[in-house]
Amino acid sequence: MKNMLDDIPSILLMGPGPSSVAPATYHALSRQSLGHLDPTFIQIMDEIKAGLQTLFGTENALTVPISGTGSAGMEAAFVNMVERGDKVLILQNGVFGQRMADVAGRLGAEVTELTFPWGTPVIVDQVAEQLKKDDYKIVAVVHAETSTGVRNPVQEIGDLLRGKDTLYLVDTVTSLGGIPVEIDKWGADIVYSGTQKCLSCPPGLAPASFSPAAVEKLQSRSCKVPNWYLDLTMLTKYWEGKTRVYHHTAPINMLYGLYQAIWNVLDEGLENVYARHKAAHERLVAGLADMGWQMLVEEKYRLPMLNTVLVPEGVDEAAMRKELLDTYHIEIGSGLGPLAGKIIRIGLMGYNAQDCCVDRLLDAMRKITAK
Amino acid sequence: MKNMLDDIPSILLMGPGPSSVAPATYHALSRQSLGHLDPTFIQIMDEIKAGLQTLFGTENALTVPISGTGSAGMEAAFVNMVERGDKVLILQNGVFGQRMADVAGRLGAEVTELTFPWGTPVIVDQVAEQLKKDDYKIVAVVHAETSTGVRNPVQEIGDLLRGKDTLYLVDTVTSLGGIPVEIDKWGADIVYSGTQKCLSCPPGLAPASFSPAAVEKLQSRSCKVPNWYLDLTMLTKYWEGKTRVYHHTAPINMLYGLYQAIWNVLDEGLENVYARHKAAHERLVAGLADMGWQMLVEEKYRLPMLNTVLVPEGVDEAAMRKELLDTYHIEIGSGLGPLAGKIIRIGLMGYNAQDCCVDRLLDAMRKITAK
Repeated sequence: MKNMLDDIPSILLMGPGPSSVAPATYHALSRQSLGHLDPTFIQIMDEIKAGLQTLFGTENALTVPISGTGSAGMEAAFVNMVERGDKVLILQNGVFGQRMADVAGRLGAEVTELTFPWGTPVIVDQVAEQLKKDDYKIVAVVHAETSTGVRNPVQEIGDLLRGKDTLYLVDTVTSLGGIPVEIDKWGADIVYSGTQKCLSCPPGLAPASFSPAAVEKLQSRSCKVPNWYLDLTMLTKYWEGKTRVYHHTAPINMLYGLYQAIWNVLDEGLENVYARHKAAHERLVAGLADMGWQMLVEEKYRLPMLNTVLVPEGVDEAAMRKELLDTYHIEIGSGLGPLAGKIIRIGLMGYNAQDCCVDRLLDAMRKITAK
Repeated sequence: MKNMLDDIPSILLMGPGPSSVAPATYHALSRQSLGHLDPTFIQIMDEIKAGLQTLFGTENALTVPISGTGSAGMEAAFVNMVERGDKVLILQNGVFGQRMADVAGRLGAEVTELTFPWGTPVIVDQVAEQLKKDDYKIVAVVHAETSTGVRNPVQEIGDLLRGKDTLYLVDTVTSLGGIPVEIDKWGADIVYSGTQKCLSCPPGLAPASFSPAAVEKLQSRSCKVPNWYLDLTMLTKYWEGKTRVYHHTAPINMLYGLYQAIWNVLDEGLENVYARHKAAHERLVAGLADMGWQMLVEEKYRLPMLNTVLVPEGVDEAAMRKELLDTYHIEIGSGLGPLAGKIIRIGLMGYNAQDCCVDRLLDAMRKITAK
């Protein structure tokens, strides 16, 4: 019987995620499974929690990986925190802000979207104006908009909310492990991420963290969380305390992968990791400029790990991406929504934020466009 | 920096799941990641769907793995199919029937539970009586109750529902790949499973299948599915058709694991797999009887892959389980709810449904109880 896994090509994943996985993390995924209540496994869980606290820059006790991909993190954030009729303000400048509005709306939230042109950041003064107009239970923003390559001013938005009753929700799917994430400093209450970006672990888990204020909201809900699988009141009984109560069977081997991915980042050191992402990004931008390619986003708002590059007149970006994949075994991403066809998206995430990856891509792009 | 993964002990997982993983499946998990829209990966997705159709005994086009553990499959089943006020009848004789009631209730279903003593099967005549009392949108049952070791009469219940508008939901988390699952023959409309039982793949995915009638219900909903992450109307656009539309980033390497796990089962042959489970079960029951241990469940309703064994007077089952784990490196499970302390649960799932595993466990139990 033919087995397709034997034919998996070796592709350099330089799109918007998943990113290429570090060898040690692949190895971790294939370690012997343990039971979800095994004492050794519970110790691994505890170390994952502690590692995530360091990565997130938080002392939040409720810091756990959700058993689904990054989007399950978004779902968990809203479904635990929103009750029907709650006013939610979403600062939207890309696909993932749009997704937040969809997720929250389905849960019965009264959603207001404050939108900004894709490729530009959220403007803090406009947020301040909007906050005068109404009281919101939650204000939500994406730290690193994967669809546009924009870094939003999460600290400044957090400063506006300080002292208010409003919970501050920040999506850090693409930023965690690539640029500083300091959720306690920002005053963020509800935060989630993914494993398949700068942590260079395959997709499948969503690290998340909830502040004491968020936990209070959770505990004072007037009805049960309308999602059994993601109900944090039950998940915490499995992830915390001396006696662990079975909820759902944890994704054991994916958690090994996350453990190793966190280990890799902490072993290298967070500052070194951030510097490596920055250096690779600068090398890429300089190389692209040499070729005459310009970036979509103004320099000060650019993400190092997600580079949105304007496609020059006369270049067929879809054909280039296909040739990159087929001939050079490099995957990059296309533009989404209004940016489809206008930009390409180049990921320099985690293990791939290296000079050699940048050079391999630039070299291939030069060869393709020189024809 | 110390790495806990280096200290993972090698444990024979003979509890209620996760089960021990086949070597080829561990290897699959550590294969090179691909992008979630990579052409090779899409072929792998198509083969997974086809393999699941064979395992489930169905021609349902909508047969896909949900990106979460078995409980996410349960969540997906109800959240896509239930609208507020829908009457749902749950045939409950264990923890997972209880869980169904909780899941459905949170989604606004009007839940009726028809309960049966734990350790005994659903009685078909009582279901027939109940069906005369009201019209239900959904009737739900667990095929293989992991908490009690009971096989419920899913074919006979399905026969009661034939020709009715009622959708028939069957949980096959523990049965799939261990005893025949024939959802088209049963007339089941909504079915889900897990990877960590008889497929011997780590937890993290929930194979699921939906009949044309279930798809019709999905498409005629009066409001959006109140769960973005598990919304099948969007998931199908990623899993079906010529042009695949990104929804959430699929858990790539877990899907490699599932691909291999399905491959293992089909390569051995479904009938051979079922026979192996049956033989291992019979060997276990005979060995236990020799020791004077009796089964909880009447013979004709016993599950081969989940053996519930009455703890004889004078045996401290918690101490025995601890010694099995610490000294013999074998994990078995405890009883849940009203069965806590009264039974142990021995899994013979997938890769572990082998004579050598049965003998290793029996030998260890003999040594412990002889002291």
